[in-house]
Amino acid sequence: MNGSQAIVHTLLANSVDVCFANPGTSEMHFVAALDANPEMRCVLGLFEGVVTGAADGYYRMADKPAATLLHLGPGLSNGLANLHNARRAESGVVNIVGQHALDHIANDSPLTSDIEGLAWPVSHWVHTTKSPDEAAGDVAVAVGQASGRPGRVATLILPADAAWGECSPMQHSLLEKPALPRVNSDRVDVIARALREAGDPGSIALLIGGRGMRAKASEWAGRIAAHTGCRLLGEIKSSRVERGLGRVNIPQVPYPIDQGLSTLANVRAVILVGAIEPAAYFAYPGKPRMLLPSDVKTYVLANSSDDIESSLQALCEALGAQGTAPSLLKAQSLTQGLPSGKPTVDTIGHVIAASLPEGAIVVDEAITSGRRLHDLTAFSPPHDWLENPGGSIGYALPVAVGAALADPGRKVLAVIGDGSAMFTLQALWTLARENLDVTVVICSNRSYRILYGELENVGGPKPGPNAERMLMLDGPSLDWPALAKGHGVDGCRVETLELFYKALKNAFAGGGPHLIELCM
Amino acid sequence: MNGSQAIVHTLLANSVDVCFANPGTSEMHFVAALDANPEMRCVLGLFEGVVTGAADGYYRMADKPAATLLHLGPGLSNGLANLHNARRAESGVVNIVGQHALDHIANDSPLTSDIEGLAWPVSHWVHTTKSPDEAAGDVAVAVGQASGRPGRVATLILPADAAWGECSPMQHSLLEKPALPRVNSDRVDVIARALREAGDPGSIALLIGGRGMRAKASEWAGRIAAHTGCRLLGEIKSSRVERGLGRVNIPQVPYPIDQGLSTLANVRAVILVGAIEPAAYFAYPGKPRMLLPSDVKTYVLANSSDDIESSLQALCEALGAQGTAPSLLKAQSLTQGLPSGKPTVDTIGHVIAASLPEGAIVVDEAITSGRRLHDLTAFSPPHDWLENPGGSIGYALPVAVGAALADPGRKVLAVIGDGSAMFTLQALWTLARENLDVTVVICSNRSYRILYGELENVGGPKPGPNAERMLMLDGPSLDWPALAKGHGVDGCRVETLELFYKALKNAFAGGGPHLIELCM
Repeated sequence: MNGSQAIVHTLLANSVDVCFANPGTSEMHFVAALDANPEMRCVLGLFEGVVTGAADGYYRMADKPAATLLHLGPGLSNGLANLHNARRAESGVVNIVGQHALDHIANDSPLTSDIEGLAWPVSHWVHTTKSPDEAAGDVAVAVGQASGRPGRVATLILPADAAWGECSPMQHSLLEKPALPRVNSDRVDVIARALREAGDPGSIALLIGGRGMRAKASEWAGRIAAHTGCRLLGEIKSSRVERGLGRVNIPQVPYPIDQGLSTLANVRAVILVGAIEPAAYFAYPGKPRMLLPSDVKTYVLANSSDDIESSLQALCEALGAQGTAPSLLKAQSLTQGLPSGKPTVDTIGHVIAASLPEGAIVVDEAITSGRRLHDLTAFSPPHDWLENPGGSIGYALPVAVGAALADPGRKVLAVIGDGSAMFTLQALWTLARENLDVTVVICSNRSYRILYGELENVGGPKPGPNAERMLMLDGPSLDWPALAKGHGVDGCRVETLELFYKALKNAFAGGGPHLIELCM
Repeated sequence: MNGSQAIVHTLLANSVDVCFANPGTSEMHFVAALDANPEMRCVLGLFEGVVTGAADGYYRMADKPAATLLHLGPGLSNGLANLHNARRAESGVVNIVGQHALDHIANDSPLTSDIEGLAWPVSHWVHTTKSPDEAAGDVAVAVGQASGRPGRVATLILPADAAWGECSPMQHSLLEKPALPRVNSDRVDVIARALREAGDPGSIALLIGGRGMRAKASEWAGRIAAHTGCRLLGEIKSSRVERGLGRVNIPQVPYPIDQGLSTLANVRAVILVGAIEPAAYFAYPGKPRMLLPSDVKTYVLANSSDDIESSLQALCEALGAQGTAPSLLKAQSLTQGLPSGKPTVDTIGHVIAASLPEGAIVVDEAITSGRRLHDLTAFSPPHDWLENPGGSIGYALPVAVGAALADPGRKVLAVIGDGSAMFTLQALWTLARENLDVTVVICSNRSYRILYGELENVGGPKPGPNAERMLMLDGPSLDWPALAKGHGVDGCRVETLELFYKALKNAFAGGGPHLIELCM
């Protein structure tokens, strides 16, 4: 047995059985070890941003980490932006990054670089294996890191000689997962009292993040709100929201700075539930950096390493609210009064809401086009909604790959701006290769539309020719059906809402990947 | 005047007048400053690997740096792999990377990351501007770093408040470029004596790298070789080789480990001329890590910060070889006996050699398919040949963008493996947007072919299903004409050498970008 085989056995023993990969020469022994273990599902991405983003999406739906296999410092570099996103989404990932043989690093051959230095900014844990005998133990630690609560990004750097060298047959199974910390009853009591004694409960907000946006947790939150009159709010972007008709609908803090500030303007006290105090995405001249009023009173019910669901349950029980029904949205017919004509930011959400199948997984990266996607999809059948808490664009196509692999019985819908989709369009090929049941909607406005607003937000001028050349994606326009075809995916272009609705229904009815370019 | 304007003025004052860009919100003031200065040519890349690779290609042909504009840590991350390549190619680049306002960094908003930490592994110089008044001076230092010999990667991190804050009107012009170090005459004398007194001059190799592969330098090298009988060798990959009929042809050390070792097996002494002792690209079990025999005697005539051309001239004169004609290849008809039928590794070079226009710039990233491209193109009219000394794949399309912009009167031919081209295929759109005279040949073998050989090299097994899924790019195959069309580029597919020849001639005859998928 060599170091690579010991790692693969250890991964499988700890039920890490999917490996998103883009290997190179220094990883060939690892590839051979994967080859010898067909229980490991190996999924090729033609660019490393696909590989790492898929691992993020996989974790969100499987609640366990996948492995990635990356080629030296450059391969890791290409995967960094989506590891940044995974880290912010609290997704556990086990990166295996090849390294030169230890006795070859100092020779500074062309592909040599400071891999640990590259890994640290996106990783919670980084380690270089020093010998084949340490390989199994090292990867077990990495799996432990990635599998904790919250999930963490663990990067194991595997020198080629540790990968190919002989070691004693071994594998390491993890101890059982450590139990989550017990609910902090002192906190619960303080918060329950604050809620009970509030003169104006509507000025108190439960700000919910992370696993607090899953259905069971949000139901407890809904009971608390119905009982006390406090507000429920979600963070600007959440890793995974279980929502839709019959579930408690938690409005999220809007991303645009002015809307975010006004949404929170009347909050006098905030109770953080797996969330942190919201900062502005960006600094703007003369505007606050933090979105909550500066004199807000802050309570922490649970942070992301706590058992969020149980904390909410405990608070609910302390308030005697467990018998209170949460207030729910009333069903409304979504197919009646469907808008028609040219797609707009205000109308595409209605069409998507009307066609969304029960149990769908929606991956949302329609930055400006999708601003109102939320509104009516709250009335769609129950579904999961994945967003990008990390903010680095190019996350949605890869996350759709991983989500679809993790949960193959469900329909995945990725709604993405054309600018964002271009960063990792190679994911289309993996959708085709793995025949994943993913429908991709490209909201094509042929620009980085958000930057027009942001240029105005920072007090910039109306864009002239040089600025236009950096904000517009025209001259030529991207042809998305052709890009889809190039990657082996069926694609079409629609220019009206009627055709969009028809195309969506067709895509959901068929299996396998589809792409719809929605011209806006 | 604000910090952004001071930077743009300083860049222009130092003739940095091309900016490859993919900006985001934190860079909007910088975009406004670019907008106010139309003398700055702004070139948008739809992915940051395009942006940084284009800056590399620009430097190689313009011999001066371009600027890049990147969005925070994730934008820089996406550009790192091609900055790694630029660094290894000794290309000067001035990166401007946006950062949050200094008073917003600690708020850890979603896009916050350790930008300096990400920049260091690929940069020679990294600095964060602390105030608008320091912006112009800081970027002048960056330009100085990038403009030195050899070129360096300089990364200036620009916080939003330094970008938008007012400063006194200022710009900094650099002092005149520092002169190159004088030729080291002691070294020249020692090496001349060694060459004169060699019993077996054929066992001495001039190993040439960097600017030693430009035509004037290689002509001096050719005289030395003709006079003394020593061998001429180039490094495995060179940033830019001026070659073709009438120029001295310098064979390069082969990349595959066994061929590299056997090429150098009989070398008893090596004279390094802008080159370093060649290391194996990768370590292999039981094979040497360095390619030269361990008892080789090493001389250094010039390193990359020296005046390589003058050093070769001085050596030539010390040997009294300045009157000796270098030996040159004899012209041969390339169009006679053109091979036909199915394209193979052994035949495509002939077709390319027969169609290459004088003054062409060839960007070579046909890793396995191109192994023999060199052979016959040595008989083509004079041209420049760009390779990737950094080894991170995905360099060629972006470098072609930058090279074509730097030298608009010349035809650019990029020959790229399908696997490599996928990493930065978004560069196709920039080719179309800027209407660059670039012909892209995709050598489509629907696999990471090199890894088959490498798996064998490391003693791996014959690949089974899991390995095949990571080495093959089939199921589905990529449709390159569709990918080209999607990005606004004309494309075609050819399956015979006859059609390949015709397509190449047509592409060179027309202007603007073309893509040819060459099925192998």
